[in-house]
Amino acid sequence: MDYPNDQAPGAPIRSGIPEHGRIPKYYAVKAQISLLIDELGEGGLLPTERDLALRHEVSRETVRQALRELLLEGRLRRQGRGTVVAGPKLEQPLSLASYTEGVRRQGRRPGRHLIGLERFPCPEALAAEIGAVRGEPVWHLERVLLADDERVGLESTYVSVARLPRLDTEFDPDSSFYAYLRDRLGIAFGDADERIETVLATPREALLIGTPPALPMLLLHRLSRDTEGRPLERVRTLFRGDRFSFTTHLGGGDGTTRRGGGDEGR
Amino acid sequence: MDYPNDQAPGAPIRSGIPEHGRIPKYYAVKAQISLLIDELGEGGLLPTERDLALRHEVSRETVRQALRELLLEGRLRRQGRGTVVAGPKLEQPLSLASYTEGVRRQGRRPGRHLIGLERFPCPEALAAEIGAVRGEPVWHLERVLLADDERVGLESTYVSVARLPRLDTEFDPDSSFYAYLRDRLGIAFGDADERIETVLATPREALLIGTPPALPMLLLHRLSRDTEGRPLERVRTLFRGDRFSFTTHLGGGDGTTRRGGGDEGR
Repeated sequence: MDYPNDQAPGAPIRSGIPEHGRIPKYYAVKAQISLLIDELGEGGLLPTERDLALRHEVSRETVRQALRELLLEGRLRRQGRGTVVAGPKLEQPLSLASYTEGVRRQGRRPGRHLIGLERFPCPEALAAEIGAVRGEPVWHLERVLLADDERVGLESTYVSVARLPRLDTEFDPDSSFYAYLRDRLGIAFGDADERIETVLATPREALLIGTPPALPMLLLHRLSRDTEGRPLERVRTLFRGDRFSFTTHLGGGDGTTRRGGGDEGR
Repeated sequence: MDYPNDQAPGAPIRSGIPEHGRIPKYYAVKAQISLLIDELGEGGLLPTERDLALRHEVSRETVRQALRELLLEGRLRRQGRGTVVAGPKLEQPLSLASYTEGVRRQGRRPGRHLIGLERFPCPEALAAEIGAVRGEPVWHLERVLLADDERVGLESTYVSVARLPRLDTEFDPDSSFYAYLRDRLGIAFGDADERIETVLATPREALLIGTPPALPMLLLHRLSRDTEGRPLERVRTLFRGDRFSFTTHLGGGDGTTRRGGGDEGR
Protein backbone atom coordinates (compact mmCIF):
# COMPACT_ATOMS: atom_id res chain seq x y z
CA MET A 1 0.00 0.00 0.00
CA ASP A 2 2.77 2.36 -1.00
CA TYR A 3 0.61 4.63 -3.16
CA PRO A 4 -2.05 7.20 -2.34
CA ASN A 5 -5.50 5.62 -2.55
CA ASP A 6 -3.62 2.34 -2.92
CA GLN A 7 -3.31 3.12 -6.65
CA ALA A 8 -0.03 2.01 -8.14
CA PRO A 9 0.14 3.72 -11.54
CA GLY A 10 0.77 0.58 -13.54
CA ALA A 11 -1.32 -1.82 -11.51
CA PRO A 12 -3.86 -3.83 -13.46
CA ILE A 13 -6.38 -3.29 -10.71
CA ARG A 14 -6.59 0.15 -9.26
CA SER A 15 -8.29 -0.58 -6.03
CA GLY A 16 -8.98 2.99 -4.94
CA ILE A 17 -12.32 3.49 -3.27
CA PRO A 18 -14.54 6.54 -3.01
CA GLU A 19 -13.62 8.87 -0.14
CA HIS A 20 -17.30 9.56 0.26
CA GLY A 21 -19.77 6.78 -0.04
CA ARG A 22 -19.63 3.10 0.66
CA ILE A 23 -17.42 0.49 -0.95
CA PRO A 24 -19.58 -1.94 -2.91
CA LYS A 25 -19.30 -5.32 -1.19
CA TYR A 26 -18.27 -7.15 -4.37
CA TYR A 27 -15.53 -4.60 -4.87
CA ALA A 28 -14.02 -5.17 -1.41
CA VAL A 29 -13.95 -8.90 -2.24
CA LYS A 30 -12.38 -8.14 -5.62
CA ALA A 31 -9.57 -6.18 -3.92
CA GLN A 32 -8.95 -9.12 -1.56
CA ILE A 33 -8.90 -11.64 -4.41
CA SER A 34 -6.55 -9.33 -6.28
CA LEU A 35 -4.03 -9.62 -3.43
CA LEU A 36 -4.43 -13.40 -3.52
CA ILE A 37 -3.76 -13.33 -7.30
CA ASP A 38 -0.47 -11.52 -6.65
CA GLU A 39 0.50 -14.17 -4.10
CA LEU A 40 -0.42 -17.11 -6.33
CA GLY A 41 1.39 -15.83 -9.44
CA GLU A 42 0.79 -16.80 -13.09
CA GLY A 43 -0.86 -20.18 -13.51
CA GLY A 44 -1.83 -20.44 -9.84
CA LEU A 45 -5.19 -22.09 -9.17
CA LEU A 46 -7.83 -19.97 -7.48
CA PRO A 47 -10.00 -21.49 -4.72
CA THR A 48 -13.57 -22.37 -5.76
CA GLU A 49 -16.41 -19.84 -5.63
CA ARG A 50 -17.77 -21.69 -2.65
CA ASP A 51 -14.48 -21.48 -0.73
CA LEU A 52 -14.08 -17.80 -1.59
CA ALA A 53 -17.64 -17.07 -0.41
CA LEU A 54 -16.97 -18.83 2.90
CA ARG A 55 -13.59 -17.17 3.35
CA HIS A 56 -14.93 -13.64 2.76
CA GLU A 57 -18.33 -14.26 4.38
CA VAL A 58 -20.32 -13.12 1.35
CA SER A 59 -22.78 -14.77 -1.02
CA ARG A 60 -21.57 -16.75 -4.03
CA GLU A 61 -23.25 -14.16 -6.27
CA THR A 62 -21.01 -11.46 -4.75
CA VAL A 63 -17.93 -13.62 -5.41
CA ARG A 64 -19.13 -14.22 -8.98
CA GLN A 65 -19.39 -10.48 -9.64
CA ALA A 66 -15.83 -9.94 -8.39
CA LEU A 67 -14.54 -12.86 -10.50
CA ARG A 68 -16.44 -11.62 -13.56
CA GLU A 69 -14.58 -8.29 -13.49
CA LEU A 70 -11.23 -9.99 -12.87
CA LEU A 71 -11.89 -12.27 -15.86
CA LEU A 72 -12.94 -9.34 -18.09
CA GLU A 73 -9.77 -7.51 -17.11
CA GLY A 74 -7.59 -10.50 -17.94
CA ARG A 75 -6.29 -11.03 -14.42
CA LEU A 76 -7.85 -14.49 -14.30
CA ARG A 77 -8.76 -17.05 -16.94
CA ARG A 78 -10.83 -20.20 -17.04
CA GLN A 79 -8.90 -23.44 -17.40
CA GLY A 80 -10.95 -26.59 -17.63
CA ARG A 81 -13.35 -26.33 -14.72
CA GLY A 82 -11.03 -24.17 -12.63
CA THR A 83 -9.95 -20.54 -12.63
CA VAL A 84 -6.25 -19.67 -12.78
CA VAL A 85 -4.12 -16.54 -12.63
CA ALA A 86 -3.56 -15.21 -16.17
CA GLY A 87 -0.23 -14.05 -17.57
CA PRO A 88 0.44 -10.43 -18.49
CA LYS A 89 -1.30 -8.90 -21.52
CA LEU A 90 0.49 -9.19 -24.86
CA GLU A 91 2.01 -5.87 -25.88
CA GLN A 92 1.40 -5.18 -29.55
CA PRO A 93 3.50 -2.32 -30.95
CA LEU A 94 1.65 0.23 -33.05
CA SER A 95 3.69 0.01 -36.24
CA LEU A 96 3.41 -0.88 -39.88
CA ALA A 97 4.59 -4.35 -38.93
CA SER A 98 2.11 -7.15 -39.23
CA TYR A 99 0.38 -8.91 -36.37
CA THR A 100 2.69 -11.84 -37.09
CA GLU A 101 5.82 -9.84 -36.30
CA GLY A 102 4.37 -8.26 -33.19
CA VAL A 103 3.42 -11.57 -31.62
CA ARG A 104 6.66 -13.28 -32.61
CA ARG A 105 8.69 -10.58 -30.91
CA GLN A 106 7.10 -11.54 -27.61
CA GLY A 107 8.12 -15.14 -28.00
CA ARG A 108 4.61 -16.31 -28.88
CA ARG A 109 3.68 -18.32 -31.97
CA PRO A 110 1.39 -16.30 -34.27
CA GLY A 111 -1.27 -17.97 -36.39
CA ARG A 112 -4.34 -17.15 -38.46
CA HIS A 113 -7.44 -19.14 -39.12
CA LEU A 114 -9.52 -18.35 -42.22
CA ILE A 115 -13.18 -17.51 -41.65
CA GLY A 116 -13.90 -16.40 -45.19
CA LEU A 117 -12.62 -14.79 -48.37
CA GLU A 118 -15.36 -13.31 -50.51
CA ARG A 119 -15.93 -10.69 -53.20
CA PHE A 120 -18.60 -8.03 -52.91
CA PRO A 121 -19.41 -4.79 -54.75
CA CYS A 122 -17.54 -1.84 -53.22
CA PRO A 123 -19.83 0.38 -51.14
CA GLU A 124 -19.57 4.16 -51.44
CA ALA A 125 -17.85 4.74 -48.08
CA LEU A 126 -15.14 2.15 -48.75
CA ALA A 127 -14.32 3.27 -52.32
CA ALA A 128 -12.05 6.20 -51.48
CA GLU A 129 -10.45 4.33 -48.59
CA ILE A 130 -9.10 1.53 -50.78
CA GLY A 131 -8.74 3.42 -54.05
CA ALA A 132 -11.65 1.70 -55.81
CA VAL A 133 -14.77 2.84 -57.62
CA ARG A 134 -18.18 2.22 -56.10
CA GLY A 135 -19.55 -1.11 -57.28
CA GLU A 136 -16.30 -2.64 -58.46
CA PRO A 137 -15.37 -5.94 -56.78
CA VAL A 138 -13.64 -5.87 -53.40
CA TRP A 139 -12.11 -8.70 -51.37
CA HIS A 140 -13.19 -9.19 -47.80
CA LEU A 141 -10.68 -11.44 -46.04
CA GLU A 142 -11.78 -12.40 -42.53
CA ARG A 143 -9.46 -14.32 -40.21
CA VAL A 144 -9.24 -15.25 -36.55
CA LEU A 145 -5.89 -14.27 -35.01
CA LEU A 146 -4.09 -16.86 -32.89
CA ALA A 147 -1.26 -16.69 -30.38
CA ASP A 148 0.07 -20.11 -29.36
CA ASP A 149 -3.19 -21.58 -30.74
CA GLU A 150 -5.28 -19.37 -28.45
CA ARG A 151 -7.88 -17.28 -30.31
CA VAL A 152 -7.09 -13.64 -29.48
CA GLY A 153 -8.62 -11.52 -32.22
CA LEU A 154 -10.56 -11.19 -35.46
CA GLU A 155 -9.35 -9.32 -38.52
CA SER A 156 -11.19 -8.07 -41.61
CA THR A 157 -9.13 -6.84 -44.55
CA TYR A 158 -10.76 -5.01 -47.48
CA VAL A 159 -8.75 -4.64 -50.66
CA SER A 160 -9.58 -4.05 -54.31
CA VAL A 161 -9.85 -7.18 -56.51
CA ALA A 162 -8.34 -5.24 -59.42
CA ARG A 163 -5.23 -4.73 -57.29
CA LEU A 164 -4.93 -8.36 -56.12
CA PRO A 165 -6.76 -10.43 -58.77
CA ARG A 166 -5.32 -13.78 -57.68
CA LEU A 167 -5.70 -13.43 -53.92
CA ASP A 168 -8.06 -16.42 -53.80
CA THR A 169 -5.67 -18.80 -55.54
CA GLU A 170 -2.16 -17.53 -54.72
CA PHE A 171 -2.45 -16.57 -51.08
CA ASP A 172 -2.25 -19.03 -48.18
CA PRO A 173 -4.82 -17.58 -45.76
CA ASP A 174 -2.97 -18.99 -42.73
CA SER A 175 0.11 -16.92 -43.59
CA SER A 176 1.00 -13.25 -43.32
CA PHE A 177 -0.90 -11.05 -45.80
CA TYR A 178 1.85 -8.45 -45.59
CA ALA A 179 4.51 -11.03 -46.46
CA TYR A 180 2.37 -12.00 -49.50
CA LEU A 181 2.14 -8.39 -50.67
CA ARG A 182 5.87 -7.88 -50.24
CA ASP A 183 7.36 -11.14 -51.45
CA ARG A 184 4.90 -12.07 -54.16
CA LEU A 185 3.75 -8.73 -55.51
CA GLY A 186 6.52 -6.35 -54.48
CA ILE A 187 4.04 -4.03 -52.78
CA ALA A 188 5.52 -2.14 -49.83
CA PHE A 189 3.67 -0.10 -47.26
CA GLY A 190 4.27 3.64 -47.29
CA ASP A 191 2.22 4.90 -44.39
CA ALA A 192 -1.00 4.28 -42.49
CA ASP A 193 -3.56 6.02 -40.32
CA GLU A 194 -4.76 4.14 -37.29
CA ARG A 195 -7.55 4.67 -34.80
CA ILE A 196 -8.03 2.70 -31.59
CA GLU A 197 -11.21 2.44 -29.58
CA THR A 198 -12.85 0.11 -27.11
CA VAL A 199 -16.05 -1.69 -28.17
CA LEU A 200 -18.10 -4.64 -26.97
CA ALA A 201 -17.85 -7.92 -28.87
CA THR A 202 -20.97 -8.71 -30.87
CA PRO A 203 -22.49 -12.19 -30.42
CA ARG A 204 -20.97 -13.29 -33.77
CA GLU A 205 -17.52 -11.97 -32.85
CA ALA A 206 -17.70 -13.49 -29.36
CA LEU A 207 -18.57 -16.84 -30.95
CA LEU A 208 -15.71 -16.66 -33.47
CA ILE A 209 -13.10 -15.56 -30.92
CA GLY A 210 -14.49 -17.73 -28.16
CA THR A 211 -14.97 -14.94 -25.60
CA PRO A 212 -17.92 -14.12 -23.37
CA PRO A 213 -20.36 -11.83 -25.22
CA ALA A 214 -19.98 -8.12 -24.44
CA LEU A 215 -16.31 -8.55 -23.44
CA PRO A 216 -14.58 -5.17 -23.89
CA MET A 217 -12.38 -5.38 -26.98
CA LEU A 218 -9.74 -3.12 -28.49
CA LEU A 219 -10.70 -2.23 -32.06
CA LEU A 220 -7.97 -1.04 -34.39
CA HIS A 221 -8.94 0.67 -37.65
CA ARG A 222 -6.21 0.96 -40.25
CA LEU A 223 -6.08 2.71 -43.61
CA SER A 224 -2.81 2.09 -45.36
CA ARG A 225 -1.14 3.34 -48.50
CA ASP A 226 1.72 2.02 -50.60
CA THR A 227 5.04 3.81 -51.02
CA GLU A 228 3.57 5.87 -53.86
CA GLY A 229 0.78 7.12 -51.60
CA ARG A 230 -1.95 5.07 -53.29
CA PRO A 231 -4.68 3.70 -50.97
CA LEU A 232 -4.08 -0.01 -50.38
CA GLU A 233 -6.26 -1.59 -47.71
CA ARG A 234 -8.83 -0.96 -45.02
CA VAL A 235 -8.37 -3.18 -42.00
CA ARG A 236 -10.48 -3.66 -38.91
CA THR A 237 -8.82 -5.74 -36.21
CA LEU A 238 -10.54 -6.67 -33.01
CA PHE A 239 -8.27 -7.73 -30.13
CA ARG A 240 -9.38 -9.31 -26.86
CA GLY A 241 -9.23 -6.49 -24.32
CA ASP A 242 -8.22 -8.93 -21.59
CA ARG A 243 -5.23 -10.22 -23.60
CA PHE A 244 -3.79 -7.21 -25.45
CA SER A 245 -2.36 -3.79 -24.94
CA PHE A 246 -0.77 -1.48 -27.52
CA THR A 247 2.56 0.25 -27.14
CA THR A 248 4.15 3.14 -28.94
CA HIS A 249 7.25 5.28 -28.67
CA LEU A 250 6.75 9.01 -29.18
CA GLY A 251 9.69 11.00 -30.45
CA GLY A 252 10.77 14.52 -29.72
CA GLY A 253 10.44 17.96 -31.20
CA ASP A 254 11.61 16.91 -34.65
CA GLY A 255 8.04 15.96 -35.46
CA THR A 256 8.69 12.25 -35.75
CA THR A 257 7.83 9.25 -33.68
CA ARG A 258 10.13 6.29 -33.65
CA ARG A 259 8.59 2.87 -33.66
CA GLY A 260 9.28 0.44 -30.86
CA GLY A 261 10.70 -2.06 -33.28
CA GLY A 262 13.49 -2.70 -35.66
CA ASP A 263 13.31 -3.52 -39.34
CA GLU A 264 9.86 -5.09 -39.35
CA GLY A 265 8.09 -2.12 -40.82
CA ARG A 266 7.74 -2.87 -44.49
CA MET B 1 -26.64 -3.64 -45.87
CA ASP B 2 -23.81 -3.14 -48.33
CA TYR B 3 -21.25 -5.24 -46.43
CA PRO B 4 -20.85 -8.96 -45.84
CA ASN B 5 -22.43 -9.91 -42.50
CA ASP B 6 -23.77 -6.34 -42.50
CA GLN B 7 -20.43 -5.27 -41.03
CA ALA B 8 -19.24 -1.92 -42.30
CA PRO B 9 -15.59 -1.68 -41.27
CA GLY B 10 -15.87 1.64 -39.48
CA ALA B 11 -19.36 1.23 -38.09
CA PRO B 12 -19.70 1.77 -34.35
CA ILE B 13 -22.00 -1.20 -34.13
CA ARG B 14 -21.02 -4.28 -36.03
CA SER B 15 -24.28 -6.06 -36.20
CA GLY B 16 -23.06 -9.36 -37.59
CA ILE B 17 -24.75 -12.39 -36.11
CA PRO B 18 -23.57 -15.97 -35.70
CA GLU B 19 -24.08 -18.09 -38.81
CA HIS B 20 -24.78 -20.99 -36.49
CA GLY B 21 -26.85 -20.46 -33.43
CA ARG B 22 -29.59 -18.07 -32.52
CA ILE B 23 -29.47 -14.30 -32.35
CA PRO B 24 -29.96 -13.21 -28.76
CA LYS B 25 -33.28 -11.35 -28.58
CA TYR B 26 -31.77 -8.25 -26.99
CA TYR B 27 -29.21 -8.14 -29.78
CA ALA B 28 -31.84 -8.13 -32.53
CA VAL B 29 -33.51 -5.20 -30.71
CA LYS B 30 -30.13 -3.47 -30.41
CA ALA B 31 -29.59 -3.73 -34.18
CA GLN B 32 -33.06 -2.22 -34.77
CA ILE B 33 -32.44 0.63 -32.33
CA SER B 34 -29.10 1.19 -34.01
CA LEU B 35 -30.88 1.87 -37.31
CA LEU B 36 -33.22 4.25 -35.49
CA ILE B 37 -30.17 6.05 -34.04
CA ASP B 38 -28.82 6.59 -37.56
CA GLU B 39 -32.18 8.05 -38.63
CA LEU B 40 -32.51 10.35 -35.62
CA GLY B 41 -28.98 11.77 -35.83
CA GLU B 42 -26.95 13.45 -33.09
CA GLY B 43 -29.05 14.93 -30.31
CA GLY B 44 -32.21 13.13 -31.43
CA LEU B 45 -34.48 11.95 -28.60
CA LEU B 46 -35.03 8.20 -28.32
CA PRO B 47 -38.53 6.86 -27.57
CA THR B 48 -39.07 5.69 -23.98
CA GLU B 49 -38.23 2.14 -22.87
CA ARG B 50 -41.92 1.45 -22.69
CA ASP B 51 -42.52 2.59 -26.28
CA LEU B 52 -39.52 0.61 -27.55
CA ALA B 53 -40.74 -2.52 -25.75
CA LEU B 54 -44.19 -2.15 -27.36
CA ARG B 55 -42.75 -1.40 -30.79
CA HIS B 56 -40.44 -4.44 -30.81
CA GLU B 57 -42.79 -6.70 -28.84
CA VAL B 58 -40.24 -7.56 -26.18
CA SER B 59 -39.99 -7.02 -22.43
CA ARG B 60 -38.66 -3.76 -20.98
CA GLU B 61 -35.74 -5.74 -19.51
CA THR B 62 -34.75 -6.80 -23.05
CA VAL B 63 -34.90 -3.17 -24.20
CA ARG B 64 -32.85 -2.13 -21.18
CA GLN B 65 -30.08 -4.62 -22.06
CA ALA B 66 -29.91 -3.27 -25.63
CA LEU B 67 -29.83 0.33 -24.37
CA ARG B 68 -27.16 -0.52 -21.79
CA GLU B 69 -24.76 -1.70 -24.51
CA LEU B 70 -25.53 1.29 -26.73
CA LEU B 71 -24.83 3.60 -23.75
CA LEU B 72 -21.57 1.78 -22.91
CA GLU B 73 -20.48 2.10 -26.54
CA GLY B 74 -21.20 5.82 -26.59
CA ARG B 75 -23.91 5.63 -29.24
CA LEU B 76 -26.48 7.02 -26.80
CA ARG B 77 -26.26 9.23 -23.74
CA ARG B 78 -28.58 10.16 -20.90
CA GLN B 79 -29.87 13.72 -20.94
CA GLY B 80 -32.06 14.71 -18.05
CA ARG B 81 -34.68 11.97 -17.87
CA GLY B 82 -34.41 11.08 -21.54
CA THR B 83 -31.94 9.25 -23.78
CA VAL B 84 -30.49 10.99 -26.82
CA VAL B 85 -28.21 10.09 -29.72
CA ALA B 86 -24.57 10.86 -28.78
CA GLY B 87 -22.07 12.64 -31.01
CA PRO B 88 -18.98 10.93 -32.42
CA LYS B 89 -16.14 9.96 -30.09
CA LEU B 90 -13.40 12.53 -29.55
CA GLU B 91 -10.23 11.57 -31.45
CA GLN B 92 -7.17 12.12 -29.29
CA PRO B 93 -3.88 11.96 -31.24
CA LEU B 94 -1.13 9.86 -29.69
CA SER B 95 1.60 12.47 -29.46
CA LEU B 96 3.76 14.29 -26.96
CA ALA B 97 1.18 17.07 -27.03
CA SER B 98 -0.89 17.60 -23.92
CA TYR B 99 -4.52 16.65 -23.46
CA THR B 100 -5.27 20.37 -23.68
CA GLU B 101 -3.93 20.62 -27.25
CA GLY B 102 -5.65 17.44 -28.41
CA VAL B 103 -9.08 18.55 -27.25
CA ARG B 104 -8.67 22.12 -28.51
CA ARG B 105 -7.84 20.86 -31.98
CA GLN B 106 -11.27 19.28 -32.18
CA GLY B 107 -12.98 22.54 -31.33
CA ARG B 108 -13.81 21.50 -27.78
CA ARG B 109 -12.91 23.49 -24.68
CA PRO B 110 -10.44 21.56 -22.50
CA GLY B 111 -10.45 21.88 -18.72
CA ARG B 112 -9.05 20.19 -15.63
CA HIS B 113 -10.47 19.92 -12.16
CA LEU B 114 -8.10 19.26 -9.24
CA ILE B 115 -8.82 16.23 -7.10
CA GLY B 116 -5.63 16.36 -5.10
CA LEU B 117 -1.93 17.25 -5.00
CA GLU B 118 -0.01 15.37 -2.35
CA ARG B 119 3.51 14.22 -1.51
CA PHE B 120 4.34 10.65 -0.66
CA PRO B 121 7.56 8.62 -0.28
CA CYS B 122 8.62 7.16 -3.64
CA PRO B 123 7.94 3.40 -3.89
CA GLU B 124 10.55 1.09 -5.35
CA ALA B 125 8.75 0.47 -8.68
CA LEU B 126 8.25 4.17 -9.38
CA ALA B 127 11.80 5.27 -8.52
CA ALA B 128 13.49 4.33 -11.80
CA GLU B 129 10.50 5.49 -13.85
CA ILE B 130 10.73 9.10 -12.63
CA GLY B 131 14.44 9.26 -11.87
CA ALA B 132 14.07 9.33 -8.09
CA VAL B 133 15.46 7.33 -5.18
CA ARG B 134 13.18 5.07 -3.19
CA GLY B 135 11.70 6.96 -0.23
CA GLU B 136 12.38 10.48 -1.50
CA PRO B 137 9.26 12.66 -1.84
CA VAL B 138 7.13 12.41 -4.97
CA TRP B 139 4.20 14.51 -6.12
CA HIS B 140 0.95 12.84 -7.03
CA LEU B 141 -1.21 15.26 -8.99
CA GLU B 142 -4.68 13.91 -9.66
CA ARG B 143 -7.12 15.77 -11.91
CA VAL B 144 -10.41 15.15 -13.67
CA LEU B 145 -10.23 15.96 -17.39
CA LEU B 146 -13.04 18.04 -18.87
CA ALA B 147 -14.21 18.70 -22.42
CA ASP B 148 -16.79 21.50 -22.65
CA ASP B 149 -17.37 21.04 -18.89
CA GLU B 150 -18.19 17.35 -19.38
CA ARG B 151 -16.07 15.02 -17.23
CA VAL B 152 -14.31 12.68 -19.66
CA GLY B 153 -11.25 11.32 -17.86
CA LEU B 154 -9.04 11.14 -14.80
CA GLU B 155 -5.29 11.75 -14.81
CA SER B 156 -2.60 10.93 -12.25
CA THR B 157 0.84 12.47 -12.72
CA TYR B 158 3.82 11.33 -10.63
CA VAL B 159 6.90 13.51 -10.60
CA SER B 160 9.84 14.00 -8.24
CA VAL B 161 9.51 16.80 -5.67
CA ALA B 162 13.23 17.51 -5.99
CA ARG B 163 12.64 18.27 -9.68
CA LEU B 164 9.59 20.50 -9.14
CA PRO B 165 9.91 21.79 -5.57
CA ARG B 166 7.35 24.59 -5.95
CA LEU B 167 4.62 22.70 -7.80
CA ASP B 168 2.17 23.23 -4.92
CA THR B 169 2.53 27.02 -4.88
CA GLU B 170 3.50 27.98 -8.45
CA PHE B 171 1.26 25.78 -10.55
CA ASP B 172 -2.41 26.49 -11.30
CA PRO B 173 -3.91 22.99 -11.22
CA ASP B 174 -6.65 23.96 -13.68
CA SER B 175 -4.04 24.76 -16.33
CA SER B 176 -1.79 22.65 -18.55
CA PHE B 177 1.01 20.90 -16.64
CA TYR B 178 3.08 20.74 -19.82
CA ALA B 179 2.73 24.50 -20.38
CA TYR B 180 3.94 25.00 -16.77
CA LEU B 181 7.01 22.82 -17.35
CA ARG B 182 7.84 24.59 -20.60
CA ASP B 183 7.05 28.21 -19.83
CA ARG B 184 8.00 28.39 -16.16
CA LEU B 185 10.81 25.86 -15.87
CA GLY B 186 12.11 25.55 -19.42
CA ILE B 187 11.71 21.77 -19.36
CA ALA B 188 10.97 20.26 -22.77
CA PHE B 189 9.86 16.72 -23.54
CA GLY B 190 12.33 14.54 -25.39
CA ASP B 191 10.45 11.31 -25.87
CA ALA B 192 7.92 9.02 -24.21
CA ASP B 193 6.79 5.42 -24.10
CA GLU B 194 3.06 4.83 -24.08
CA ARG B 195 0.90 1.80 -23.49
CA ILE B 196 -2.85 1.64 -24.08
CA GLU B 197 -5.24 -0.90 -22.66
CA THR B 198 -8.91 -1.24 -21.82
CA VAL B 199 -9.91 -1.57 -18.16
CA LEU B 200 -13.08 -1.24 -16.12
CA ALA B 201 -13.61 1.89 -14.04
CA THR B 202 -13.24 1.28 -10.31
CA PRO B 203 -16.07 2.57 -8.08
CA ARG B 204 -13.89 5.52 -7.02
CA GLU B 205 -13.01 6.39 -10.63
CA ALA B 206 -16.62 6.01 -11.76
CA LEU B 207 -17.67 8.39 -8.97
CA LEU B 208 -15.03 10.98 -9.86
CA ILE B 209 -15.71 10.86 -13.61
CA GLY B 210 -19.45 10.44 -13.19
CA THR B 211 -19.77 7.27 -15.25
CA PRO B 212 -21.60 4.03 -14.52
CA PRO B 213 -19.34 1.64 -12.56
CA ALA B 214 -17.55 -0.97 -14.71
CA LEU B 215 -17.77 1.21 -17.86
CA PRO B 216 -14.96 0.11 -20.23
CA MET B 217 -12.27 2.79 -20.16
CA LEU B 218 -9.15 3.42 -22.22
CA LEU B 219 -6.12 3.59 -19.94
CA LEU B 220 -3.02 5.32 -21.23
CA HIS B 221 0.28 4.79 -19.40
CA ARG B 222 3.03 7.26 -20.20
CA LEU B 223 6.68 7.42 -19.17
CA SER B 224 8.34 10.54 -20.48
CA ARG B 225 11.86 11.88 -20.56
CA ASP B 226 13.27 15.36 -21.08
CA THR B 227 15.42 16.33 -24.07
CA GLU B 228 18.52 15.07 -22.23
CA GLY B 229 16.95 11.65 -21.79
CA ARG B 230 16.36 12.02 -18.05
CA PRO B 231 13.17 10.40 -16.69
CA LEU B 232 10.57 13.08 -16.04
CA GLU B 233 7.10 11.83 -15.22
CA ARG B 234 4.89 8.79 -14.94
CA VAL B 235 1.32 9.45 -16.04
CA ARG B 236 -1.76 7.30 -15.91
CA THR B 237 -4.72 8.73 -17.80
CA LEU B 238 -8.09 7.10 -17.85
CA PHE B 239 -10.42 8.13 -20.69
CA ARG B 240 -14.12 7.30 -20.98
CA GLY B 241 -14.27 4.47 -23.53
CA ASP B 242 -17.62 5.73 -24.79
CA ARG B 243 -16.25 9.23 -25.50
CA PHE B 244 -12.67 8.75 -26.77
CA SER B 245 -10.63 7.07 -29.44
CA PHE B 246 -6.90 7.45 -30.16
CA THR B 247 -5.38 8.16 -33.53
CA THR B 248 -1.88 7.82 -34.88
CA HIS B 249 -0.08 8.13 -38.17
CA LEU B 250 2.49 5.46 -38.97
CA GLY B 251 5.32 6.35 -41.28
CA GLY B 252 7.21 4.27 -43.79
CA GLY B 253 10.37 2.25 -43.99
CA ASP B 254 12.62 5.03 -42.70
CA GLY B 255 11.90 3.77 -39.21
CA THR B 256 9.96 6.82 -38.14
CA THR B 257 6.34 7.56 -37.44
CA ARG B 258 5.00 10.96 -38.09
CA ARG B 259 2.52 12.41 -35.67
CA GLY B 260 -0.94 13.42 -36.81
CA GLY B 261 -0.36 16.97 -35.76
CA GLY B 262 1.72 20.01 -36.41
CA ASP B 263 3.96 21.85 -34.01
CA GLU B 264 2.19 20.92 -30.80
CA GLY B 265 4.71 18.35 -29.69
CA ARG B 266 6.97 20.11 -27.28
